[in-house]
Amino acid sequence: MPESYNPCMSDAPALDFWFEFASTYSYPAAMRIAPLAEAAGVTLRWRPFVLGPIFKAQGWDNSPFNLYPAKGAYMWRDLERLCAELNLPFKRPPSFPQHTIAATRVALVALDEDWGEDFCRAVYAREFGEGRDIGTVDAVADIVSTLGLKPAPVLERAQSDAIKARLRAQTEEAQRLGIFGAPSFVTADGELFWGNDRLEAALAWAKR
Amino acid sequence: MPESYNPCMSDAPALDFWFEFASTYSYPAAMRIAPLAEAAGVTLRWRPFVLGPIFKAQGWDNSPFNLYPAKGAYMWRDLERLCAELNLPFKRPPSFPQHTIAATRVALVALDEDWGEDFCRAVYAREFGEGRDIGTVDAVADIVSTLGLKPAPVLERAQSDAIKARLRAQTEEAQRLGIFGAPSFVTADGELFWGNDRLEAALAWAKR
Repeated sequence: MPESYNPCMSDAPALDFWFEFASTYSYPAAMRIAPLAEAAGVTLRWRPFVLGPIFKAQGWDNSPFNLYPAKGAYMWRDLERLCAELNLPFKRPPSFPQHTIAATRVALVALDEDWGEDFCRAVYAREFGEGRDIGTVDAVADIVSTLGLKPAPVLERAQSDAIKARLRAQTEEAQRLGIFGAPSFVTADGELFWGNDRLEAALAWAKR
Repeated sequence: MPESYNPCMSDAPALDFWFEFASTYSYPAAMRIAPLAEAAGVTLRWRPFVLGPIFKAQGWDNSPFNLYPAKGAYMWRDLERLCAELNLPFKRPPSFPQHTIAATRVALVALDEDWGEDFCRAVYAREFGEGRDIGTVDAVADIVSTLGLKPAPVLERAQSDAIKARLRAQTEEAQRLGIFGAPSFVTADGELFWGNDRLEAALAWAKR
């Protein structure tokens, strides 16, 4: 288990990175955050969760980018510009939002081991860099195998009651923290920052 | 009429700054934009509009910050942090959102003359810097007089059919441009940027 998952091992400033695989702006955040945190001397905790239950509590049965077309049209163009600026490949996935339960459960398994961040980046790269589906168990298995692991035992662990409960608990914790979108960043003293745009501000706060 | 309102007088890069007096994030944007645009060599056009009709078209009869409490709680805290970082005073107004029709009509009058930007900054400073109402005709008259002008003739011009029609046209234009929130920035080639956070990106695009 890497050092970053044991908060007792270090007095370094810490930041929780809350992300959802369906979230478009979580893509550039996930691709940028590790080197920025390292440069800032901030220990990261990757916290995958799902936005569905949080959106439902706000009365939404879909992404606000689909519910509010002007906002959605803006987001896709903005993301395209942003990725060009960051030299990140960008391609819209065939459908939006993607189903993310299977990938998120695997992320929880992977983050307990030492391939979690690579898995998360691989999911985003496939979804928004290559514009491919990440919502099926087959797609998730394929991502796992590209990382050099056998998918079957991973998928079995991801289907365990313990992991299912962890994902529910993680999502409930996000809601308790006041998280309403992704990506979000929460400092050790409870400051919440929302959006890829605020990543630098969150890291600066964590270091204060 | 200042140079910035005549697009024919200069080949300088140009940017339209769309703002709504009730919009919280328009406050730091309005306070920051003039020196940043000058430093970037970008000619600004200040475009006041009202969000009410645009929100109504999305099915909202109130600010999303009131309709979605987690988002609202985050916004107030985020604005407080942001203003502290920018050394801008910050105090919540007694009610939110404020009624902005009277102030917006006066802004259109003022921007035709040479005191428009000062008026707009004075409205924001009073509303979010001092936490005072800006929604009544009396409050607007008071702001006008702090700028050394007699309020009565200004308010009369602001009530003219021409100005009322201009505000409606301005708001319809915002909607046609795909604007769904404030502040927004639109470049001469039609690129839309939304949010105080994207001001620098909008200026950089305008200069390309």
